[in-house]
Amino acid sequence: MVMHMSRTRVAVAGASGYAGGEVLRLLLDHPEVEVGALTGASNAGQSLGALQPHLLPLADRVLEETTTEVLSGHDVVFLALPHGQSGAVAAELGDDVVVIDCGADFRLTDPALWEKFYGSAHAGSWPYGLPELPGQRALLTGATRVAVPGCYPTVSSLALAPAVAAGIVDVEDLVITAASGTSGAGKAAKPHLLGSEVMGSASAYGVGGTHRHTPEIIQNLSGLLPDGQGVKVSFTPVLVPMPRGILASASAPTTSSADDVRAVYDQAYAAERFVHLLPEGQWPQTKSVIGSNAVHVQVTVDEDAGRMVAVAVVDNLAKGTGGAAVQCMNLALGLDEGTGLTTVGLAP
Amino acid sequence: MVMHMSRTRVAVAGASGYAGGEVLRLLLDHPEVEVGALTGASNAGQSLGALQPHLLPLADRVLEETTTEVLSGHDVVFLALPHGQSGAVAAELGDDVVVIDCGADFRLTDPALWEKFYGSAHAGSWPYGLPELPGQRALLTGATRVAVPGCYPTVSSLALAPAVAAGIVDVEDLVITAASGTSGAGKAAKPHLLGSEVMGSASAYGVGGTHRHTPEIIQNLSGLLPDGQGVKVSFTPVLVPMPRGILASASAPTTSSADDVRAVYDQAYAAERFVHLLPEGQWPQTKSVIGSNAVHVQVTVDEDAGRMVAVAVVDNLAKGTGGAAVQCMNLALGLDEGTGLTTVGLAP
Amino acid sequence: MVMHMSRTRVAVAGASGYAGGEVLRLLLDHPEVEVGALTGASNAGQSLGALQPHLLPLADRVLEETTTEVLSGHDVVFLALPHGQSGAVAAELGDDVVVIDCGADFRLTDPALWEKFYGSAHAGSWPYGLPELPGQRALLTGATRVAVPGCYPTVSSLALAPAVAAGIVDVEDLVITAASGTSGAGKAAKPHLLGSEVMGSASAYGVGGTHRHTPEIIQNLSGLLPDGQGVKVSFTPVLVPMPRGILASASAPTTSSADDVRAVYDQAYAAERFVHLLPEGQWPQTKSVIGSNAVHVQVTVDEDAGRMVAVAVVDNLAKGTGGAAVQCMNLALGLDEGTGLTTVGLAP
Amino acid sequence: MVMHMSRTRVAVAGASGYAGGEVLRLLLDHPEVEVGALTGASNAGQSLGALQPHLLPLADRVLEETTTEVLSGHDVVFLALPHGQSGAVAAELGDDVVVIDCGADFRLTDPALWEKFYGSAHAGSWPYGLPELPGQRALLTGATRVAVPGCYPTVSSLALAPAVAAGIVDVEDLVITAASGTSGAGKAAKPHLLGSEVMGSASAYGVGGTHRHTPEIIQNLSGLLPDGQGVKVSFTPVLVPMPRGILASASAPTTSSADDVRAVYDQAYAAERFVHLLPEGQWPQTKSVIGSNAVHVQVTVDEDAGRMVAVAVVDNLAKGTGGAAVQCMNLALGLDEGTGLTTVGLAP
Repeated sequence: MVMHMSRTRVAVAGASGYAGGEVLRLLLDHPEVEVGALTGASNAGQSLGALQPHLLPLADRVLEETTTEVLSGHDVVFLALPHGQSGAVAAELGDDVVVIDCGADFRLTDPALWEKFYGSAHAGSWPYGLPELPGQRALLTGATRVAVPGCYPTVSSLALAPAVAAGIVDVEDLVITAASGTSGAGKAAKPHLLGSEVMGSASAYGVGGTHRHTPEIIQNLSGLLPDGQGVKVSFTPVLVPMPRGILASASAPTTSSADDVRAVYDQAYAAERFVHLLPEGQWPQTKSVIGSNAVHVQVTVDEDAGRMVAVAVVDNLAKGTGGAAVQCMNLALGLDEGTGLTTVGLAP
Repeated sequence: MVMHMSRTRVAVAGASGYAGGEVLRLLLDHPEVEVGALTGASNAGQSLGALQPHLLPLADRVLEETTTEVLSGHDVVFLALPHGQSGAVAAELGDDVVVIDCGADFRLTDPALWEKFYGSAHAGSWPYGLPELPGQRALLTGATRVAVPGCYPTVSSLALAPAVAAGIVDVEDLVITAASGTSGAGKAAKPHLLGSEVMGSASAYGVGGTHRHTPEIIQNLSGLLPDGQGVKVSFTPVLVPMPRGILASASAPTTSSADDVRAVYDQAYAAERFVHLLPEGQWPQTKSVIGSNAVHVQVTVDEDAGRMVAVAVVDNLAKGTGGAAVQCMNLALGLDEGTGLTTVGLAP
Repeated sequence: MVMHMSRTRVAVAGASGYAGGEVLRLLLDHPEVEVGALTGASNAGQSLGALQPHLLPLADRVLEETTTEVLSGHDVVFLALPHGQSGAVAAELGDDVVVIDCGADFRLTDPALWEKFYGSAHAGSWPYGLPELPGQRALLTGATRVAVPGCYPTVSSLALAPAVAAGIVDVEDLVITAASGTSGAGKAAKPHLLGSEVMGSASAYGVGGTHRHTPEIIQNLSGLLPDGQGVKVSFTPVLVPMPRGILASASAPTTSSADDVRAVYDQAYAAERFVHLLPEGQWPQTKSVIGSNAVHVQVTVDEDAGRMVAVAVVDNLAKGTGGAAVQCMNLALGLDEGTGLTTVGLAP
Repeated sequence: MVMHMSRTRVAVAGASGYAGGEVLRLLLDHPEVEVGALTGASNAGQSLGALQPHLLPLADRVLEETTTEVLSGHDVVFLALPHGQSGAVAAELGDDVVVIDCGADFRLTDPALWEKFYGSAHAGSWPYGLPELPGQRALLTGATRVAVPGCYPTVSSLALAPAVAAGIVDVEDLVITAASGTSGAGKAAKPHLLGSEVMGSASAYGVGGTHRHTPEIIQNLSGLLPDGQGVKVSFTPVLVPMPRGILASASAPTTSSADDVRAVYDQAYAAERFVHLLPEGQWPQTKSVIGSNAVHVQVTVDEDAGRMVAVAVVDNLAKGTGGAAVQCMNLALGLDEGTGLTTVGLAP
């Protein structure tokens, strides 16, 4: 165990939303950090107890305005702001501050794609916070700026990365359908996200390549190929009636056997503490990973269809957002990567 | 209103399960039928009020044993029995009785496929009760035996049939992921179907071509092709936390434009009262069709991925089972096909 | 059956909300009416298909502004407007038009209570649309103005009315806790009603006599006592994770035996087609009445505690709002009270 | 941090059920224990990964038979067995072993009540594991046998104990209605607990004083009164569609003011780390305490009704079972009472 003279002091900008709340939930169980300033926008001045009553130890904390003055003086600042707002805030924070952005602003490397999918000026790109992608962990170790991946890209990329990297599937015919809980859509009140609407209903949205996470998935998987090559992905998100969790069903043409595919995945994730290839025949369920940083994966080959099928699950708020953020903070600070994180899910 | 000398007398074998209950729910609103004998297995002797308390008008009915004697003397007999039991019961019923089997026994035409997927001797095949498939309605009109389709095959086939029939997709690369409510798994108590397990969780099962509905989907879609040709389907079912409803996300390689694909679907379903192509940009949600016989469909083309994507929803118990059964009964009896059925869903 | 030269022409003001949608769902299955104008507020100009996609036969209808001009020329006008808006609209409609208000505006007879709980000027009181309360049906038959009860008052009043009317309980110690689905809170987007918030959670609100439905429950039950006497009610509403349905658990001190109490309820509801006293030992579940106009009731006596306990369930949108509205329209028009309504619930 | 020569070695009998799984989930985050033997009944021989896939670090553990031999050699044994089985197992374990029974066997002190409600011979009574009840903590400190309370009794007792102990309510008219998630009913597959049945439905059961937890609630609250006095409780449990959590709404006649009542609760729980009286006006929701050992309480007085109303929430599996078990183990072992437990809930 590393000795610390004092704990790392952490601020969270956007503490009233789901991403900010999840970062705080995890930080409260993190032995090396101390929670500093918490900020909000329209709800600045309110107590966290009113906004996030599950975070009991912080109930008396009052949200401050998201200003440079409030955020300065911390070792780490988590940004959990609406898309498009992180750039301006981050620009005011010194290079000595570790900034972990839970938003999308710094994920895409291609400005044209950012502008196409987000409709605003590109802020730039930061080291991408998915250490389980080949080569990525090294970029995150000691980093002072990290872009936390989107929840769909996390689970989709981990479902397909070993197969794409190993060259055992036709990368120009990747098909992903992902069933997601509702918290991925955030805490802003919109009619179609009301409990009355979502309970008892599954609904497709962002179909046909229009979801903002599509280019991020493509970027991640294309990054595993030689320069100049790229993947093609058909991505369909489906909203299902649960608060947390994503199950991604991904497939691609293959001529490999199920055993060979399994061996590829086994090797790819053998050293990853958070990605777990389930025993043969056991298929993932989101409940097993709720609240945890774990990813459960299973893979098979449908020989009649000629396609490999991989299924992966994450908690969209934990490993899909807040857990990844804490994992990246650990890497950035040189702590053990899993500090404060768990692979134990909350079930039933 | 037409005057009738007497109503059609209908029996339901397996009245305590979900399929039998749904048939009864719909028959209670059907103007031309009278509910006769209701039978059960282990729960024979119990009142329907104890087993299906939502069917209030039948609460005092007592389940009888499923015997030929009990079922005889009806114009129509619905079989809602565990797979493999319909053959023996049906063999004892006269040719003048309309028999509608909600089970799988008579769906598959290939005995080898039946044996592979169901593990017992093949009972034979009956006219397949999906009138919206090209050519199928004629076979059902006046039929005395009907095999009601499986729920996944209904929604999957309707999602892809127009494209397959029109030859605008690569039929050897059909990919379907379907999110289903739990009632499709029936009322038999199994640990993984407990509310505590399914609420808050999405889980994949029957992946890689192993689900029993896979050969049925392939049979339906291959039937749209010239003799000797067949489709290839990668089918992945996902259990999601809702009691009813299936959303199928289906895709296939295409070089057609979104407009052309849309025109194909528009034409295919223009005359179908129960299949509704949603206006452009509106994607299906299962809630819109709960309790109804309607199927909502939407389609687009992802040009970057080179795939057409179709999404369709049904209520697995209504149009997916009991509604289809009543629709087929109407056709068999020469009644208007929609008698006693609705396109109005129960939402929210 | 009454012969009609033409169907009754019906308008719905507030057709985009849950109450308006439910009225329309039921009217689409009503043999004597024709759906006329549909109006909205901020969503005037939009198609009903976009707002209420489950009402497929009306998908192409476009919402109009809620004006006297639009609403005139109908035989019946349903008002499904935010509380406080019905008075002004109704005042412009002629006495020959049947006006059924699904809002709270005309329910309370005491202006002081209205002002205390709703904070605005009292619009007056209309015949109260709960025909199952003693004496109430006669007031509704042929009425041209009807105030549809609140959902909690419907189920709470029906749970306790027989005991209160029969004088077998201490009316000054009535305790009601009611678990409600979320649709009772309406379709306006509020953060605490998001699916992410309500799924997996039960929450109390409006505790301690502060919920607006409390005085309405008291008014209904006090109306069963001799003049000058009144009941005391402790009412606690609890939001639970389901879109529809209310279960009310009500109790009161009694010295009667369970058999005597049962006899009182049996007699009170024997002639009521929509209120069903379950067989001894069977307790109500909301699922049995979803989509229906039925109320299931059960009652017992806890001799150790010295209290009678009655449990009742309704679908808050059906018998609790839209179904009651249609039932009252039937009475107002002289139709059979149950026309277009069912006692068959949608389960599972 | 205290240095330990060796960790406390813990066995869990009944590791495949919900209570056993929750104990394990919490022990995996407990710094002072090491998980030893895990036992099952019909599933002995299976891996925990197949039965409890959320407990990833224990996935390779294999369940053993529940025998004295297997359980011996541990410092602590948790019993999470079906009611009636703990007595025989515990009798074989030495007095030096701490035995924590999550079942009901040793909760009731009155053999007649045990026999009436559980229908078998009384095993005896052990120190009752609700340290927040006045006087109870001392009995648990250093104990070698502990009876973990039932989930309903925990939340119900904590909702009412301060008022009963302070003599500010009429203890002969306590009324409790509690809405519970389904995991309280256990993992044994029963038809009425299927997801298809419970999703979208609230149902009452065990009404009228017949639920087994009723005498336990009465025992707890009567224990706060002078000898020879007892409370009367009307208790109604309601099953609602969520996997975890109980919300108890409790009321009793009072003449105290809301401020006075609040002061009583404030004082009663000021020193309790796990019981939190919410700020005025904020009412409990179960989601805030899911996965945690926290109890959120709120209280008010309905002056019109003449009753105090208290609402409390717990996670039935955490503070309601497994969390209490760990808390009691901590007390038994002389560890800090909160070791390995959290007051942070998992939301949304």
